[in-house]
Amino acid sequence: MRISILLFDGFTMLDAVGGYAVLGWLPTAEVEFVAERKTIIADDLRSGGMAAWRDYSEVEATDILYVPGGPGVEPQLANEATLAFIRRLHEASTWTFGVCNGVELLAAAGILAGKTVTTNINARADVAALGATVVNSRYHRDGKIVTTAGVSAGIDGALFLARLIAGEDTAKTIQLGIEYYPAPPFSYASPDEVPEPIREVIRIAEESLLLDRMNAAQPRFLQPSL
Amino acid sequence: MRISILLFDGFTMLDAVGGYAVLGWLPTAEVEFVAERKTIIADDLRSGGMAAWRDYSEVEATDILYVPGGPGVEPQLANEATLAFIRRLHEASTWTFGVCNGVELLAAAGILAGKTVTTNINARADVAALGATVVNSRYHRDGKIVTTAGVSAGIDGALFLARLIAGEDTAKTIQLGIEYYPAPPFSYASPDEVPEPIREVIRIAEESLLLDRMNAAQPRFLQPSL
Repeated sequence: MRISILLFDGFTMLDAVGGYAVLGWLPTAEVEFVAERKTIIADDLRSGGMAAWRDYSEVEATDILYVPGGPGVEPQLANEATLAFIRRLHEASTWTFGVCNGVELLAAAGILAGKTVTTNINARADVAALGATVVNSRYHRDGKIVTTAGVSAGIDGALFLARLIAGEDTAKTIQLGIEYYPAPPFSYASPDEVPEPIREVIRIAEESLLLDRMNAAQPRFLQPSL
Repeated sequence: MRISILLFDGFTMLDAVGGYAVLGWLPTAEVEFVAERKTIIADDLRSGGMAAWRDYSEVEATDILYVPGGPGVEPQLANEATLAFIRRLHEASTWTFGVCNGVELLAAAGILAGKTVTTNINARADVAALGATVVNSRYHRDGKIVTTAGVSAGIDGALFLARLIAGEDTAKTIQLGIEYYPAPPFSYASPDEVPEPIREVIRIAEESLLLDRMNAAQPRFLQPSL
């Protein structure tokens, strides 16, 4: 089972790695990291880099298309090469998996019209404006499209998808392999429960500061062709 | 605040990225990824690669030493260069953070004698044999040493550490930024609650199969010097 994880400049690393840590352990998984250019793709913090060792032209079709989010989504919304890649892969995919505001990329590619999805708390309005119905869930399935809330929700959504693909025992085995029995020190049930002053900080950060900060900083490493 | 995340061949990517996604957003964080050689370090699944852009000789001292785990820990237990690096960085670190069986590396480096720690469910006996007292917690602090259970527990432990470093409001803001309000589809409270047949599968996998599988596969990408 081919799993194609999209990387782009300024992605959020946990968006990509949370679901990878789950789906990559499915017994038949063959994961590839795909980007417009084969190099080390820099994350939003500019200190993290992941190897993209396939480019768009090398991936004709896939079983699972996996699109993470991050501040780097915004420039990609205007990158027709990325949108066309998503459209093309989605056409024949068995599953399309969108994490965080990566769901906005799916929407911009035009594949969410009339679909119901979830997304990052601060991307809800933008995703809805692109024609999708947005629900406030940790993860959500509509046909072959599985979407998740922000960043770490990719783990929960991928376990849900792993159960759909391989059954409950396999999904539970993966859950144990990554010891996902979370007990965060602050136990709000959802982002909507977080006190408003903290929500305001993150709203402002996600709407402008993160992209500015990312653009102002250079990746801390070389980016040779791979 | 300098945060040095150790990478080595066969690390588990979520071990490194879970805590990075938290600590990297501390206001004064300056994260570096360090390995014995500056290149793209391949993870346990061989499809994931992260850029290590500092080598051991370039990191004289750090504020937070961060050691992830993975099947690749076992060969590192006999790598004196890695053990010496851990010993040296720990000496002057403000915090030393060990995730999953990365805690075994800390123990092998000789810095856990008489300390109380947690670790991956299947590394408990090995860590105890190296002189540490092991508790079955999601995360645990003993002085400047913070350790966590397996893989995804690095997120919880890093939020705990973020609160110690920067206070509750900052830690809660990071929690919202990564939307860590987990709701996994299977809600066991801890790995000890998982049915025995599933625990047996993971025990066997972690004790032998994962390392064999990793050694049998080549990284899927080039590993140029960085």
